[in-house]
Amino acid sequence: MSHVLDLACDLIRRRSVTPEDAGCLPLIGGRLESAGFRVEHLRYGEVDNLWAVHGTTGPTLIFLGHTDVVPSGPEASWRSPPFEPTIRDGRLYGRGAADMKGSVAAMVVALERFVAAHPHHRGRVGLLLTSDEEGPTNLDGVRKVVEHFRAFGERIDWCVVGEPSAKERLGDLVRVGRRGSLSGTLSVRGVQGHVAYPEKALNPIHAFAPALAELTAERWDEGNSDFPPTSFQVSNLNAGTGATNVIPGELEALINFRYCTASRSEDLRARAEAILHRHGLDFAIDWNLSGEPFLTPPGGVLRETVLAVCRELCGIDPEQSTGGGTSDGRFIAPMGVEVVEIGPVNATIHKVDECVAVEELEQLPQLYRAVCERLLIET
Amino acid sequence: MSHVLDLACDLIRRRSVTPEDAGCLPLIGGRLESAGFRVEHLRYGEVDNLWAVHGTTGPTLIFLGHTDVVPSGPEASWRSPPFEPTIRDGRLYGRGAADMKGSVAAMVVALERFVAAHPHHRGRVGLLLTSDEEGPTNLDGVRKVVEHFRAFGERIDWCVVGEPSAKERLGDLVRVGRRGSLSGTLSVRGVQGHVAYPEKALNPIHAFAPALAELTAERWDEGNSDFPPTSFQVSNLNAGTGATNVIPGELEALINFRYCTASRSEDLRARAEAILHRHGLDFAIDWNLSGEPFLTPPGGVLRETVLAVCRELCGIDPEQSTGGGTSDGRFIAPMGVEVVEIGPVNATIHKVDECVAVEELEQLPQLYRAVCERLLIET
Ligand SMILES: [Zn+2]
Ligand SMILES: [Zn+2]
Repeated sequence: MSHVLDLACDLIRRRSVTPEDAGCLPLIGGRLESAGFRVEHLRYGEVDNLWAVHGTTGPTLIFLGHTDVVPSGPEASWRSPPFEPTIRDGRLYGRGAADMKGSVAAMVVALERFVAAHPHHRGRVGLLLTSDEEGPTNLDGVRKVVEHFRAFGERIDWCVVGEPSAKERLGDLVRVGRRGSLSGTLSVRGVQGHVAYPEKALNPIHAFAPALAELTAERWDEGNSDFPPTSFQVSNLNAGTGATNVIPGELEALINFRYCTASRSEDLRARAEAILHRHGLDFAIDWNLSGEPFLTPPGGVLRETVLAVCRELCGIDPEQSTGGGTSDGRFIAPMGVEVVEIGPVNATIHKVDECVAVEELEQLPQLYRAVCERLLIET
Repeated sequence: MSHVLDLACDLIRRRSVTPEDAGCLPLIGGRLESAGFRVEHLRYGEVDNLWAVHGTTGPTLIFLGHTDVVPSGPEASWRSPPFEPTIRDGRLYGRGAADMKGSVAAMVVALERFVAAHPHHRGRVGLLLTSDEEGPTNLDGVRKVVEHFRAFGERIDWCVVGEPSAKERLGDLVRVGRRGSLSGTLSVRGVQGHVAYPEKALNPIHAFAPALAELTAERWDEGNSDFPPTSFQVSNLNAGTGATNVIPGELEALINFRYCTASRSEDLRARAEAILHRHGLDFAIDWNLSGEPFLTPPGGVLRETVLAVCRELCGIDPEQSTGGGTSDGRFIAPMGVEVVEIGPVNATIHKVDECVAVEELEQLPQLYRAVCERLLIET
């Protein structure tokens, strides 16, 4: 087995379902310490985070990833057990193979090789890993580490996120930004009553209906050259006592904007609230901004470097995308960091029989190492 | 204590929360048997029903009521315990005092006195009681008794329902009909997905929104001289997995029409479905017609008799209404029966400190007896 395959299998064997780390981070920390990295274990609440850095001063390139995985679902649904890494038909199967223990293994191997070959590289190279990326709140992962970085004046220039970005093969898509995510918990108040006496009640479902139709039909922006248009979704809508003869007194909706740099979160909030007000609703809304959009613009040093490496090593001119969900890049970018995401094919992530092509897994350390060399050696 | 007050207290003391009868019906059956009635106990499932009749042939007047009551809620919220009948300031307090053990006691006393005074009255006079009126389905109450009646060719001409109809004092309102109730369980199917990839999902909340707005804004009819317009309510609306980042795959809504004789249930169904189809929804709807509307038209023998009795005994010209919820009258009316509802003030029904004015309770047997005499003696 190759070094990267070996480490990926070792990580998959550990049942590190969020926020469990199951020993992944100590294993990696130990290896990087041996390779000459300064390693810090940052524990917040139930969550382990690892920060390893090599070099002392100058421009700083870091790799960002997570060791936690989503639950496997019923293990019997898998062709081979999710926590027993299995190679079949040129693919490595197991929970986390693609998202993202394969990338993490590739980063570790790339960093070991890079510092062994270039012990006196310019600047600094680092690895930041968390065990709280897949959980519902991500409160104690990279978000907290960034607070710590800010408090200690830690400066980072470039960040490569190893999230599985590829569509069909490694290098065919690079993420150069992500949309922001703005959520709201909306309560619409009515007056409870009996369905036979609607004149004595105020049905919040009826009151909300035209506002809901308007919110879902609204075009929030047209997007821009970097981003698709902002999208709005109602993920949950609940009203009613369960009884068929009672008009409910309240309705609750969970709403979410995935928004691009063409809109500001304050404006989206204000426009949504204006629609609710215009329909005369008695409502309350509790907003939660879980991440501002970020973009590494064309011409950015890291963006151009990653594109060049893809062209050279993978023989592809990658699609440059800002689609998809959020990533931990949203916490790093506001520090003034160029963030680019590149990792394996994401077709099977969060599904049964998650897998990564062995050939691409073995190519990945070369790709990450080439980024280090272009940024910290050649220039 | 008067006879009617005595019997009302005896009934209130029995905790006959649906479908429990707690001995109410055997007590009443025994009394009516002694008075010369032929008594049948009809038990369906968990439910006791009582059918008592006096006379052998000719026009048939029946009284209709229920011995079951709704739960009391926390007993400590009551000024006096809900199942300990208590007289305070001229009112009898207890669960069922108004809905409708007071009326049931009045019917029993009225019938005993009527047949004692007129053992050879013309036609037949009867009492039909159930212990399943307040429950959610009413499957084994009057609905089943009517099936039995139809099977045996039982014929009824006039039915006085003792439901509490009065607004401020006995006789101020008589119900001469009820709206129908048509319910539907609507499922709207979408395609589940991640909120970050709305283009790969189909949000059933968004798909349903404009149809919901149209359904709630629709004017279904204008009512008519006997009925207010048909009303439409969505009592329950639920969609969402609970997760904030998942677009749900399905939405469920419970809808209800309270409809008048200006619309037919088939037309309401068809119009609602046409709106859903027009918005291109993938939906299924399960309809349940729990009662057709019924009306005893002006000039009807029973209607005019009850009005005349109210004018004479209560000194009021009653409001003639078709408002409010459904009643067991909906099962009797389709047999071709004139149905009129008259009972005590309904202000406290289903609430804590339910009560009936003692003076009105004592007037009620005279009122019911006068109806018997006008229909079965004087003509
Ligand atoms: Zn991931
Ligand atoms: Zn009742």
